[in-house]
Amino acid sequence: MSELYETLKGSAVADVRAAIRSRRYASHTAGLGQGYLQANLAIMPAAYALDFMRYCQRNPKPCPLTGVSDTGNPWLATMGGDLDIRSDVPAYNIYRDGQLAGSVTDIADLWQDDFVAFALGCSFTFERALQAAGLPLWHIDHDKTVPMFRSNIETVPAGPFAGKMVVSMRAIPEGRVNEAAEISRRYPLAHGAPVHAGNPAALGIADLARPDWGDPAPVPEGHVPVFWACGVTPQVAIEAARLPICITHKPGHMLITDIAEDAEVPVLTQHA
Amino acid sequence: MSELYETLKGSAVADVRAAIRSRRYASHTAGLGQGYLQANLAIMPAAYALDFMRYCQRNPKPCPLTGVSDTGNPWLATMGGDLDIRSDVPAYNIYRDGQLAGSVTDIADLWQDDFVAFALGCSFTFERALQAAGLPLWHIDHDKTVPMFRSNIETVPAGPFAGKMVVSMRAIPEGRVNEAAEISRRYPLAHGAPVHAGNPAALGIADLARPDWGDPAPVPEGHVPVFWACGVTPQVAIEAARLPICITHKPGHMLITDIAEDAEVPVLTQHA
Repeated sequence: MSELYETLKGSAVADVRAAIRSRRYASHTAGLGQGYLQANLAIMPAAYALDFMRYCQRNPKPCPLTGVSDTGNPWLATMGGDLDIRSDVPAYNIYRDGQLAGSVTDIADLWQDDFVAFALGCSFTFERALQAAGLPLWHIDHDKTVPMFRSNIETVPAGPFAGKMVVSMRAIPEGRVNEAAEISRRYPLAHGAPVHAGNPAALGIADLARPDWGDPAPVPEGHVPVFWACGVTPQVAIEAARLPICITHKPGHMLITDIAEDAEVPVLTQHA
Repeated sequence: MSELYETLKGSAVADVRAAIRSRRYASHTAGLGQGYLQANLAIMPAAYALDFMRYCQRNPKPCPLTGVSDTGNPWLATMGGDLDIRSDVPAYNIYRDGQLAGSVTDIADLWQDDFVAFALGCSFTFERALQAAGLPLWHIDHDKTVPMFRSNIETVPAGPFAGKMVVSMRAIPEGRVNEAAEISRRYPLAHGAPVHAGNPAALGIADLARPDWGDPAPVPEGHVPVFWACGVTPQVAIEAARLPICITHKPGHMLITDIAEDAEVPVLTQHA
């Protein structure tokens, strides 16, 4: 880890955002902006936005919508007092016709008047809550990416958006599975309760050692593999929809918001 | 109450829906379909649908979105196995240019190919939970409509949709206000936790005895007026937006869905 990362870990959200906006920091955001909601990002032309919102509404566990910009407006005012979606994410992936066409650290020159930006909650939130309850998470303790699998669960389609639900797996001690479920259920904007605990075959997963994304993680004796809906699901649906252009965050390089992680409602100026 | 109403109170959702669809029953739905989510309804042309979804996303306490139809499709498949939005609500209000233009029991001949139907959670859900916890609700026990007030809280606007938040008031015994808040917080799709408890003036309400909608209700000695976000809020925003046409349920005449009232996710075929 860089010296800058270590400094930013102790910094206020405004300082982290300034470092990202000025391109001084362009790496992953795990551990930054502690206590504040981090979000997945998807930007697409307005012609697809209503269907994508419907897709999120119909699949809230993998796609928990936390913010939507006005059409053509790059300031995501409901999630930050000073949040420019063109520059405030450390790195962006550009998709053209469903294919990854490049990664950049700023999208000011790609912005279109018809763009709508969507922010979706991510697993960092409930992972911190599990750790706070004394549930160790192997992939974090070993600096790996959580293992993710394409499940056999069909998402509810909307327009061109459809596909299987992607799930992430964390090994939980047998006696604490219910507790882990109860804790994560409290965070509906961060994937909520698990979709399954126990037999991977029930989700159509043949081999836990061969995840479709991320790194394999062990399931020690006395532990149960627990599966949560995963934010890669909308990414897969977006790729399958083959939009002429779509911009997402680069995995792990999230949008850091001004919303408290435990907010009842993820909207600034909303009375809670 | 009619004999049919008394019969339907003990009937399965499918039978209640059949009675409504055939126009044998065209009255209010309080107490019907026990255990199942009831919803507010708003139908509008697709040209306004993205802004209305943004309005709901930004104001989830007054506007908890539970279902959105495909454009032009009157079957709300995510909320019922056999749910035709043109006939399955007991009574509809028709608005033209923001003005109430009439009430009907069926909108088949008004349906347009560009219509999108929105279902929004309602207070019945948390009211049942409060009653189950032994908290009496005066307006229900006296067969009145809950008192509702235009507050001084600005909702977060989206396109043409904007306005003050409407709140409903229920008197809760002093020592049980926190308990009532905790119970309702568990139902984010039914307005969630209160927005305020105590002084009505803090919400800009001058006189509790003169609600803007509904019937006045007493706040007995030892009780506190508690205010929840109210589903009339989107109705007011819709009227102010002066859409050329918009169709809503007639107040109290709700959409009865196949979704369990305590579902984590209000979507059929969604793994929870």
